[in-house]
Amino acid sequence: MNNYLLDFVSKYIEVTEQEKKFLLECAEVTVKFYPKGTVLLKEGQITYKSFMVFRGCIRIFYNIEGKEKTTAFYTEMEGLTPNCANNHKPSEYYIDCLEDCLIASSTPEIEMKFNKQFPRFEIVCKMVSEEQVFRQALEINSFKILNPEQRYIKLQEDRPDLIQRVPQQHIASFLGITPQSLSRIRARLKDKTSSVTC
Amino acid sequence: MNNYLLDFVSKYIEVTEQEKKFLLECAEVTVKFYPKGTVLLKEGQITYKSFMVFRGCIRIFYNIEGKEKTTAFYTEMEGLTPNCANNHKPSEYYIDCLEDCLIASSTPEIEMKFNKQFPRFEIVCKMVSEEQVFRQALEINSFKILNPEQRYIKLQEDRPDLIQRVPQQHIASFLGITPQSLSRIRARLKDKTSSVTC
Repeated sequence: MNNYLLDFVSKYIEVTEQEKKFLLECAEVTVKFYPKGTVLLKEGQITYKSFMVFRGCIRIFYNIEGKEKTTAFYTEMEGLTPNCANNHKPSEYYIDCLEDCLIASSTPEIEMKFNKQFPRFEIVCKMVSEEQVFRQALEINSFKILNPEQRYIKLQEDRPDLIQRVPQQHIASFLGITPQSLSRIRARLKDKTSSVTC
Repeated sequence: MNNYLLDFVSKYIEVTEQEKKFLLECAEVTVKFYPKGTVLLKEGQITYKSFMVFRGCIRIFYNIEGKEKTTAFYTEMEGLTPNCANNHKPSEYYIDCLEDCLIASSTPEIEMKFNKQFPRFEIVCKMVSEEQVFRQALEINSFKILNPEQRYIKLQEDRPDLIQRVPQQHIASFLGITPQSLSRIRARLKDKTSSVTC
């Protein structure tokens, strides 16, 4: 029996035995496996689903004149409600799985039922959203005040796992630079490190 | 008696007479007037306060090598918890009032007391945070995929009030361009509009 949902909720509140049983049952229904390469949402589609990643990495990207422009990654214990689920307009972007993923998907109806049976889940959602507001604010500010090299250094500090697990062309796109610029930045930083350690 | 807090909460839930009385009392204590130019937070300081703007406009800006770099504006019914209140590290940025402002400030202690006396406030906070996640996600994506002219057009569409009320040098900084570039963009767009209407 998978206990991803239980592990997630337990990060925020102490669950009772009854809630535990309920969460394990829900996980059986909502958590599914998506192989690497699965497209969860296409440009032009509307979904009402929210996604919570339990294992793997998903990515948001736009198709701009035939070129992919990556704007976000979501990994373990990170949740995403696509814009189209909020504004009910066709999605402007794609969401795909960069790795084999385990993801819980829910709709407003599922959430409503969930909150009825497990009212404290509202508090969990509040805490998750507050964390997300904080993370996003850091990201917006970093993107606005840092140059590409500084952005890469910050990503290395804040999310070293992303640099290891995500193909470099997506990292470059995420940082707003070309793969060639990213290679130059990496080479420059490597040179700096070696001259310091010599 | 000021009813800003009541108006705000009523946007999200229907309040009872008892809750209404409580909110009016709280507003008397938490909502204060700050004249234009007031600095609410300085770089290097730590605050545990969150701010909710009821009237006016506040701004986040960094001091980068003596130059101000504006990254965000918050106006009526928008809330802000500075990063330092979350990570307990000295603030990397300033917050100031661009206009005369009416702002409610609260601390985690005030919020805890508030939630005890008015438990449904947790749900309001959840809804506010979810809205903020949505708005921020739009902002991050726009900033990453649009060029400066497109960013300005988007700002005109989404927040025409900001363009009217905020000094142009702050708008330029917020868009990641110089005031001169902003003037050129505005002139170009004006030319396009006049040639369409001729």
